[in-house]
Amino acid sequence: MTLKNDRFLKALLREDVDVTPVWMMRQAGRYLPEYRATRQRAGNFLNLCKSPEMACEVALQPLERYDFDAAILFSDILTIPDAMGQGLYFEEGEGPRFKKVIRTAADVEKLSTISAQSDLAYVMDAVALTRKELNDSVPLIGFSGSPWTLATYMIEGGGSKDFRVAKEFMYNNPEAMHLLLDKLAEAITDYLNSQIRAGAQAVQIFDTWGGILTTSSYLTFSLRYMQKIVANLVKNNNGNQVPIILFTKNGGLWLESIADVGAQAVGLDWTIEIGQARKRIGQTCALQGNMDPSILYASPTVIRAEVGNILDCFGAGNGHVFNLGHGITPDVNPDHVNAFVDAVHELSPKYHS
Amino acid sequence: MTLKNDRFLKALLREDVDVTPVWMMRQAGRYLPEYRATRQRAGNFLNLCKSPEMACEVALQPLERYDFDAAILFSDILTIPDAMGQGLYFEEGEGPRFKKVIRTAADVEKLSTISAQSDLAYVMDAVALTRKELNDSVPLIGFSGSPWTLATYMIEGGGSKDFRVAKEFMYNNPEAMHLLLDKLAEAITDYLNSQIRAGAQAVQIFDTWGGILTTSSYLTFSLRYMQKIVANLVKNNNGNQVPIILFTKNGGLWLESIADVGAQAVGLDWTIEIGQARKRIGQTCALQGNMDPSILYASPTVIRAEVGNILDCFGAGNGHVFNLGHGITPDVNPDHVNAFVDAVHELSPKYHS
Repeated sequence: MTLKNDRFLKALLREDVDVTPVWMMRQAGRYLPEYRATRQRAGNFLNLCKSPEMACEVALQPLERYDFDAAILFSDILTIPDAMGQGLYFEEGEGPRFKKVIRTAADVEKLSTISAQSDLAYVMDAVALTRKELNDSVPLIGFSGSPWTLATYMIEGGGSKDFRVAKEFMYNNPEAMHLLLDKLAEAITDYLNSQIRAGAQAVQIFDTWGGILTTSSYLTFSLRYMQKIVANLVKNNNGNQVPIILFTKNGGLWLESIADVGAQAVGLDWTIEIGQARKRIGQTCALQGNMDPSILYASPTVIRAEVGNILDCFGAGNGHVFNLGHGITPDVNPDHVNAFVDAVHELSPKYHS
Repeated sequence: MTLKNDRFLKALLREDVDVTPVWMMRQAGRYLPEYRATRQRAGNFLNLCKSPEMACEVALQPLERYDFDAAILFSDILTIPDAMGQGLYFEEGEGPRFKKVIRTAADVEKLSTISAQSDLAYVMDAVALTRKELNDSVPLIGFSGSPWTLATYMIEGGGSKDFRVAKEFMYNNPEAMHLLLDKLAEAITDYLNSQIRAGAQAVQIFDTWGGILTTSSYLTFSLRYMQKIVANLVKNNNGNQVPIILFTKNGGLWLESIADVGAQAVGLDWTIEIGQARKRIGQTCALQGNMDPSILYASPTVIRAEVGNILDCFGAGNGHVFNLGHGITPDVNPDHVNAFVDAVHELSPKYHS
């Protein structure tokens, strides 16, 4: 296997590249008319996730339009709780919901242990098929939600504004919460290792809701379990390290702790200056990020200027994967993504001379 | 005038106190049955804000139950845009809405200039009446939303999950956004000065939505306008400085910049460790905060332990006003607030010996 474009993997390992690689969280998504067409054909979002063929199709769509340096598995972070028997469903226009919720220590104890290889075979099939169809053009990223983030959905029974129930559970039943997080960390480790065996060339852990915690709770209830996962990920089938990216939204205060976990890269949201982040941890990890997704609502001129600002803020040298600071939103004009991707490739060579 | 309890004001000025003073954002609110009764009598939330007698009544209610070291004016942050002609209203069970929204530079130019003294006379009457009824037992805090925070509501037409419209406006029409923020900063300065003249003994600026910005946008579009306000606040009727508290939710990354604005205190949300914050800016400002409001869902034992942790994290010495890291939520058990307030007073003397 020789990747035709390995900038993304090289940047994660802080090796020299010609231009800064770029991809976009949620790059296969609703802002693309071709995605909406496939989703309609699937009937609903969950069918789309559970069909390896259609998941592969939508994962490849953004690469046909844009010059991205990586593809990402198309799936959902809630496949694991679904496989554990919580009964994931989506109501049109609403977020995810679960038929069963976790409210007691007994609920946690009753949770099924899963084998990702068999219980989430559709995800592994999607990884393998997407890898095959990519034909070594760019690397494929696998992913999972973090234990804490998955736990919030399982306890709340869906998304939440204030995480009242999840936090009450954590504060009043810390032992049961730790047991839940342990079970999730184990399942996620197996899930990501299965993705690596199926062909994922990098993996990202999305800690979407770690940032709602106090510092001490973040370290104890979120980061500690991500560290367990990182410590137990396997090498790929060729015996090479698969780079790991940890992304905690609103985690800027805790960068040094996140960087010390042993992952190759830290994903940044848009609130922190990437130059500051590099000063704080750039000797430990690569950095991924961090344009405000809302900039994509602005004109191509404004988008290009902001890409320039971020490249300049990071400065010369290796270890930067360009991305948004969070997923692209559904109502962005697809042409604006061209402006974004092209600006990264056109403006970045001078930082890599 | 001699305040019977001036711990709160002393702590803001980093003077020695016997115990750590404590109050609670949204302490006059829906978690109290007596508040809900008055609100029902008022008919709706806006009537409650606009009646000085009822606003005074609910501002005093928490002080009858709890040993708080300060009272806060009962009002809403959106009184200013309402006075500017935007037509504030609340639908039952929904957040605030505006009849008119700002979408163009012309909309900004058309905004009325207000005189707080006459256009928001009901607020000044509430300040004066609450001061009178407090009878110098504890100080009264006045407040306003920050220019950026008010601007987001005026542009979105209400609350928002992603601030898509406000951010698009900022990125595509920065000059119009600056004009809007300038007008708001001027109105807020007049508003807070009027509150000070009416008797407010400290003022807090709530920058609820500054934390959704990039670092550079935060400094340019939010902090800069709070600085303008701070620079133009008057002394009280006795010629004394009225302490100012700046509170930016999710502003932990920018503490040093916030502390440099010239306010006497910085309010902290719960994501940052107060000991870390003190190390970073404790020589510049007092600190207010910062218990996770969700801890109030936990048992009194857990609440007391967490109060102890935060006191210990701040450490010995002056300059700490205890508070939650955000407003108390409506479904908290009122008895848990006793556990919170009493723990602050009972556990803090040893840090002030």
